[in-house]
Amino acid sequence: MQPVLIAGKWRAADAAGSFQAANPQTGATLPDVYPTSAWTDCDAALTAAAAAFQTLRTLPRTKIAGFLRDFAARIEANVEPLAAMANAETGYPVKPRLAEVELPRTTNQLRAAAAACEEESWTRPTIDTKLDIRARYEALGPVAVFGPNNFPFAFGSCSGGDFAAAIAAGCPVIAKANTSHPGTTRLFAELAQLSADAAGLPTGMVQLIYRTSHTDGERLVSDPRLAAIAYTGSRSAGLKLKAAADAVGKPIYVELSSVNPLVILPGALKERGEKLVDEFLTSALMGTGQFCTNPGLVVLLAGAECETFLAAVGKRYEAAPVGALLSKSVAESLARGVDVLEQAGAKVLAGGKPSDAAGFRHSNTLLRATAKQFIAAPHVLQTECFGNASLAVVCESVDELLGVLKSLEGNLTGCVYSDTAGSDDATYDKIVPALRERVGRLLNDKMPTGVAVSAAMNHGGPFPATGHPGFTAVGIPTAIDRFAMWACYDNVREARLPEALKNKNPTGKLWRSIDGRWTQE
Amino acid sequence: MQPVLIAGKWRAADAAGSFQAANPQTGATLPDVYPTSAWTDCDAALTAAAAAFQTLRTLPRTKIAGFLRDFAARIEANVEPLAAMANAETGYPVKPRLAEVELPRTTNQLRAAAAACEEESWTRPTIDTKLDIRARYEALGPVAVFGPNNFPFAFGSCSGGDFAAAIAAGCPVIAKANTSHPGTTRLFAELAQLSADAAGLPTGMVQLIYRTSHTDGERLVSDPRLAAIAYTGSRSAGLKLKAAADAVGKPIYVELSSVNPLVILPGALKERGEKLVDEFLTSALMGTGQFCTNPGLVVLLAGAECETFLAAVGKRYEAAPVGALLSKSVAESLARGVDVLEQAGAKVLAGGKPSDAAGFRHSNTLLRATAKQFIAAPHVLQTECFGNASLAVVCESVDELLGVLKSLEGNLTGCVYSDTAGSDDATYDKIVPALRERVGRLLNDKMPTGVAVSAAMNHGGPFPATGHPGFTAVGIPTAIDRFAMWACYDNVREARLPEALKNKNPTGKLWRSIDGRWTQE
Repeated sequence: MQPVLIAGKWRAADAAGSFQAANPQTGATLPDVYPTSAWTDCDAALTAAAAAFQTLRTLPRTKIAGFLRDFAARIEANVEPLAAMANAETGYPVKPRLAEVELPRTTNQLRAAAAACEEESWTRPTIDTKLDIRARYEALGPVAVFGPNNFPFAFGSCSGGDFAAAIAAGCPVIAKANTSHPGTTRLFAELAQLSADAAGLPTGMVQLIYRTSHTDGERLVSDPRLAAIAYTGSRSAGLKLKAAADAVGKPIYVELSSVNPLVILPGALKERGEKLVDEFLTSALMGTGQFCTNPGLVVLLAGAECETFLAAVGKRYEAAPVGALLSKSVAESLARGVDVLEQAGAKVLAGGKPSDAAGFRHSNTLLRATAKQFIAAPHVLQTECFGNASLAVVCESVDELLGVLKSLEGNLTGCVYSDTAGSDDATYDKIVPALRERVGRLLNDKMPTGVAVSAAMNHGGPFPATGHPGFTAVGIPTAIDRFAMWACYDNVREARLPEALKNKNPTGKLWRSIDGRWTQE
Repeated sequence: MQPVLIAGKWRAADAAGSFQAANPQTGATLPDVYPTSAWTDCDAALTAAAAAFQTLRTLPRTKIAGFLRDFAARIEANVEPLAAMANAETGYPVKPRLAEVELPRTTNQLRAAAAACEEESWTRPTIDTKLDIRARYEALGPVAVFGPNNFPFAFGSCSGGDFAAAIAAGCPVIAKANTSHPGTTRLFAELAQLSADAAGLPTGMVQLIYRTSHTDGERLVSDPRLAAIAYTGSRSAGLKLKAAADAVGKPIYVELSSVNPLVILPGALKERGEKLVDEFLTSALMGTGQFCTNPGLVVLLAGAECETFLAAVGKRYEAAPVGALLSKSVAESLARGVDVLEQAGAKVLAGGKPSDAAGFRHSNTLLRATAKQFIAAPHVLQTECFGNASLAVVCESVDELLGVLKSLEGNLTGCVYSDTAGSDDATYDKIVPALRERVGRLLNDKMPTGVAVSAAMNHGGPFPATGHPGFTAVGIPTAIDRFAMWACYDNVREARLPEALKNKNPTGKLWRSIDGRWTQE
């Protein structure tokens, strides 16, 4: 049985059970056995994290930045074992996906977090010189990160965006491995612990638990020693954790589900229909459709172009190789989702059935419904089919299209393709306000699957995309904000103020808002 | 029966019941009768607010700013009726409190909100020129404001901080009057509606309902037409609304309770003991102690200075006039709170009993407990006694003092008084980290009852002070953030971008973060 990482030591778990991951390509169970931890493990991790936080607050930020950079370097030195393990656990190809795309993204993100941590402008130091009141964002305390199944590196609970943001804020992390890739998470935790030791960070800065009971998970997130939670995963489990954290007024950031509406207007189809088939196909089947921002809902206006587009996509779906899904439960859930859409009246244009090939697979699936059907049962027809399935909704008029958009729940992204000549512009203007308020990121003429790590990125959106539309899970430094409290100093003596709030700018590079003006002075 | 304000019209409520306010100075019931609205009123208000929001998004910000300024001017032109009504409903003196302190604060706040609304820098426009990704905060949608009993003007649901912040964000407000001052809220709503009409804002921009059943309140906050909620009031009612909003992933900002720990170190008592008695008395009895930031918990180190201080405060408490409390239920709740503290072992040094005088009153009450008692039953001894009662906790050592601070729940404020010669400095350094993470605002040598409307202010803090430690309810522009979503534009064509995100700075005054640099260019 693999050990857990608690208080700086790899030690045997107090195991209440065990589990093994499976290889999605073959369906075969993988050899390593991982513990389901009893509460005592959570309890020990919480105590260590709380102690680590107290030490951490006394350390210079450069130490934390040094840790993040050292960790990034160790990851780069271990591309091969990391990619091999992740390939076995997720079925994603070693190249290009794991080694050449997701890994560099992960290390870039860690280095961007290191820079933000060191530079500290994310804390938005704000000084009112007249009243001698000063404030900034400060680290909140230990954070539990529940990573998703679909980004074993870039969103891994011990390597990804939430991890990097929490550490950069100055918060110790208790990583809860995603149970479909425990080995990958373990390798990251091993490297992180080496980096933490090298950087002189307190034990308990990074800890790893693989799995707990649902009850212990809820107890963990509501424990007073924990300050905040980041969760990306299934809606049902996420809502249970959210309820537990909300009940004790603890910030919990959940990313739950999103169908990412994609509107393709007729002018765009006329102008560049074939190109759009390519773009859509690449985006929708990338990673077997297992992106949070996968375009699961395509909204079109009825007409010849629409029929041509759907026929072409359907043909290409049938011809495209059927990728592996991340786990048996993803495959089962996808089959259930497709079934729900069919029951609600959607028609299968391509695929529609689980695949008979080895491993966890479902045929590339395209469904079709009318706008009237969608508007009559919007919640059912918005069922997220996580994986390689999309629903096309065909509207008889712009009003119907608007009706479809108005019946959407909150989503991470919303995208509109229009022509360059301007024939779609009036429709664009009519429909975009409804889309804008329902999505975190509005795109033009671009598929939503690329999520750049930019200060202006939003990987967030209204419920149920996330639990609070004011925050983003991707983007440095904005993602860091989630793990901070607004900390005000009123009439506090100059010598006792944090350096960042003293009269003199500590580095000459720190951006501060002084009497309403942003300045580095 | 007084009418409600729905969709721009004063009209008869669909009343499920009625209520009247009382004069706290005398206990006499006031003549005006107010409706408890049935769900149909809430439903109509929600529909009107949702429609208003859609119109509002198309209007220039200057219109909203104009509304706020016009409203401020109308308030100033109506000082007398407003102060007379509030005096009858709250017992606060017309002068200086209502007319000379709270009213100017309210109009200043509305004007500061107008300036922030117009200037728009609160939206933090962020532009990544390399990737052509842009983002800013945008109005979230209709907001319900449940104002508290203790600031009929400056935190009134139709005039105060939450109202001003929500409007400045661009959100219509459904005001739920505090039932202890419905008439004051009505007068504000009348003026606001005149201003909304004058400014050409959509009907439904400002609406007023006086009271609903608990069930309808929970239904209101979880309704999809509502985007966010601001609530200041009792912990029990607030937690019910919070649970209802949280369950549907809707942002709700609650301010629930705070005992505002005040540590007075021995050097400070030696140096300026008498002055501190004065300062404490003024702060603790101001407004009959009915400030959210009232110093309800005084933590002292045992010794002669401590005894002198407590004896002096006790004597002054007995001698001070007994102010009126805001309502019968405040008086009852205060008596219950004092009883809870006594049951837990606290000893009464002054007062301790409801007052026999006319109206709603409780004797000025000072209690005393040991640090050992406090640490043994921290939750019980942190029972908020909203009103003119404070608990002194006497510690035998600095370690005990630290133990008291570590057993605190989240608070709005925490304050440390120390001497100027430096004899308290070592103790300060030892205890402040524990206090810092438990309070939103840390003060030195200053009572917490003044809450300046400053960009650096924090009127917030960890639970149960509020529901999220990252936000403040007072402070322009920071308080506005609560009513906004992070809205990203990815590859959106220049002509379709909001002015604030186009390449050219629309005003030359808007602060934007472009590629990591704050600039007005």
